[in-house]
Amino acid sequence: MPDEFDVIVIGGGPAGENVADRAGRGGLTVAVVEGGLAGGECSYWACVPSKALLRPVELAAEVGRMPGLRLGPIDAGAVLARRDEAVSHYDDTGQVRWIEGVPATFVRGRGSLDGPLRVRVAEPGGGSRSLTARHAVVLATGSHAAVPPVPGLAEAEPWTSHEVTAVKAVPGSLAVIGGGVVACEMAQAMHGLGAARTTMLVRGDRLLPRMEPFASELVAESFAASGIDVRTGTGVVRVERSSPGGPVTVHLSSGALVEADELLVATGRRPAVDGIGLESVGLPGDRFVEVDDSMRATGVDGGWLYAVGDVNGRDLLTHMGKYQARACGDVIAARAKGEPDDLPSMRAGAGGYGAPQVVFTDPQVCAVGRTEALARADGFPVRAVEYDLGAVTGAYLLGDGYRGRAKAVVDTERRVLLGVTFAGPGAAELLHAATIAVTAEVPLERLWHAVPPFPTVSEIWLRLLEAYGL
Amino acid sequence: MPDEFDVIVIGGGPAGENVADRAGRGGLTVAVVEGGLAGGECSYWACVPSKALLRPVELAAEVGRMPGLRLGPIDAGAVLARRDEAVSHYDDTGQVRWIEGVPATFVRGRGSLDGPLRVRVAEPGGGSRSLTARHAVVLATGSHAAVPPVPGLAEAEPWTSHEVTAVKAVPGSLAVIGGGVVACEMAQAMHGLGAARTTMLVRGDRLLPRMEPFASELVAESFAASGIDVRTGTGVVRVERSSPGGPVTVHLSSGALVEADELLVATGRRPAVDGIGLESVGLPGDRFVEVDDSMRATGVDGGWLYAVGDVNGRDLLTHMGKYQARACGDVIAARAKGEPDDLPSMRAGAGGYGAPQVVFTDPQVCAVGRTEALARADGFPVRAVEYDLGAVTGAYLLGDGYRGRAKAVVDTERRVLLGVTFAGPGAAELLHAATIAVTAEVPLERLWHAVPPFPTVSEIWLRLLEAYGL
Repeated sequence: MPDEFDVIVIGGGPAGENVADRAGRGGLTVAVVEGGLAGGECSYWACVPSKALLRPVELAAEVGRMPGLRLGPIDAGAVLARRDEAVSHYDDTGQVRWIEGVPATFVRGRGSLDGPLRVRVAEPGGGSRSLTARHAVVLATGSHAAVPPVPGLAEAEPWTSHEVTAVKAVPGSLAVIGGGVVACEMAQAMHGLGAARTTMLVRGDRLLPRMEPFASELVAESFAASGIDVRTGTGVVRVERSSPGGPVTVHLSSGALVEADELLVATGRRPAVDGIGLESVGLPGDRFVEVDDSMRATGVDGGWLYAVGDVNGRDLLTHMGKYQARACGDVIAARAKGEPDDLPSMRAGAGGYGAPQVVFTDPQVCAVGRTEALARADGFPVRAVEYDLGAVTGAYLLGDGYRGRAKAVVDTERRVLLGVTFAGPGAAELLHAATIAVTAEVPLERLWHAVPPFPTVSEIWLRLLEAYGL
Repeated sequence: MPDEFDVIVIGGGPAGENVADRAGRGGLTVAVVEGGLAGGECSYWACVPSKALLRPVELAAEVGRMPGLRLGPIDAGAVLARRDEAVSHYDDTGQVRWIEGVPATFVRGRGSLDGPLRVRVAEPGGGSRSLTARHAVVLATGSHAAVPPVPGLAEAEPWTSHEVTAVKAVPGSLAVIGGGVVACEMAQAMHGLGAARTTMLVRGDRLLPRMEPFASELVAESFAASGIDVRTGTGVVRVERSSPGGPVTVHLSSGALVEADELLVATGRRPAVDGIGLESVGLPGDRFVEVDDSMRATGVDGGWLYAVGDVNGRDLLTHMGKYQARACGDVIAARAKGEPDDLPSMRAGAGGYGAPQVVFTDPQVCAVGRTEALARADGFPVRAVEYDLGAVTGAYLLGDGYRGRAKAVVDTERRVLLGVTFAGPGAAELLHAATIAVTAEVPLERLWHAVPPFPTVSEIWLRLLEAYGL
């Protein structure tokens, strides 16, 4: 294997893989250095297994709303077995083969920067080698779950997204610290698969605090109805687990105690920058790596360092990491060849006005662009309209008691959408229409002629436009 | 009740209701004349009940693909009961109230033209009265199922969409003449609800002949797998039913016989123009009423006659009828008040490049714009790309053996989408993104920045754009 490549990518998750793909298409030689499994968190301990666990629970809820269908109890063992299949039994052979097919060179080992354009690889066997990049090094190391400094918490060996998505047996009871996306999704998955007593300990005043408030309310209502105990305004002051594998006791700010078989911490992410040698190139080693819209790290002489995906802190979402990676791979290839490096596809700016995101709970919540609050804070002339998703015939036909809501945030001067939020069962696939409308700034008058078919849930588009006065 | 209104709408289905709504908002007085049930075919004998019957079958199929979930047999009685609820037990009180709330006057009776701006109403009790319109009369009478002139067919009293959607007991066996949308949807619904022996007799060489060929293939595959007997290239030469309520025998062009408890004819629609007095205003009384993009009937002196929905033959789809109706109501109000009548919202031209449509089978098929064949026939510079929908992670996560496909038809000069087709389980809600992209002619380079969330089925958008070379 050569020691010199045009591009060296540190981290073989989806973002790293996509940089390799695009740079490789651009004619460059690429090495991908990965100490864990090629495919990254997303493939084994995040997006993929979490949805494999959630989908049966969601589907069971859909069936529960449909007269004429009756479901037996969920076979959690079969669901976990399909999760294992979805994560390829934690074997990355297929992903490595994909990388090699780019073609790119897969280097197994922990990569770290070792000065300009140099990468040191700590090999699994204990050895080490040095690689040199001719044009660029790309950091794609991702992020880890952050564990807050609560007394006793680390010692209690709590689950993070990593462990809960890889669960081998669903606990009888689960306490969850956090109220964001991971906390909500995993609370619902575990509860649906058998964690009868699931308690969410939420410091803030609502679930999913970055979403429109109505979305938080709908999720909270659904959780309450299904028996998940959501406690907002609740701090955690101390955690105890007296024996490994035994129950954990959580002391709350109210003085109350919660006991559970397992404890999940989902309170945010920190960049995976430990030991990747940022200091060797003059960057601070304890924070997200700042980049411009071409994903080039700022403050590095020569401009040879890039960062894509979670590690740059822009939008901690797999699809946004991959989007950044496509732009990054293309721009590196263009710069290496001295070709124009400012094509629109070489800038990953779409996150700037609010990255599209789906929360796979029941109801699902999805949003793109700005919330009303954010749009107002950003100084836009705003009018927002809402509509009851359950009042759309297509939603009624999906089952009894469909509860959902949609909101569109309109720029009243340009008459384009600044943001859209949908909350409702099965709403995930509604989002891309909004993403196109927001991204392409399609005027309302044009959207009016995009006729949603009857009877789909997409008819909400007509209702929102009518609500705006069209 | 007055005998004079600004606008008289003949037909109180969704299209008629929407004309009334928009003209009413424009400040005009409106009468809606309806001899049957307010709400029309769509609400009682088409879109709504058919989807109420199909959704449980579709959901059962989704569950069947998901390890860990096990469903008991479908309770057809409960499904029919929910269908009854969905059609308000064939009671139009709610719809009448909605029309009166516009506000508009609801006139119960069969309406017919009686010369310029005059409408005669044959009242249910046998009486009759005359109404006069100050500005416009709108025909919104819809369409009926066409029954082809096959010997013995009419005498055998076959089901049409009207009877099959109102079914009181699912027959043990069903023969279906036709291979279009209604034929496919109802064959699957009846088969899924208990018509063990369901046979489709299709004159042409494939199901859903207006859709991209791959969609026809996927539906045919699914039907074959579930045990629906699809016979293409099959003509029907004679039909017999010796005793009312007894089995029906269908003689095929091949010489073979098919016997079934019931027979459904779904071979197209004819306009509901019988006895509506078209001759009294100089129009032919046996065909669709031709209109311009403002829905004004062509060839009528004074331009006071309009036609919306199925009766104009443009796009026989409820949502397109409603779309036409919104434009029509607005333009009538504008013309009545002498205001500009050429705003973009006053023209319903979106059907011209291919109305969005969903077929609610499993797999669902949905399309907007032109098929590849049509785009080439229309002389566009075309390149089409396809992608396996089942290869998208978001689809895999919906269940084992997800089979689907997507196709985008691109205008290679303007780099915009001319048409998009999706076929796959649950694909219906994917369509609106395509409808926006096609309608607003969003360039591919802009669509590239509309990032589909991972892991949704919408990621197909990324794959299609990559397949095109972005």
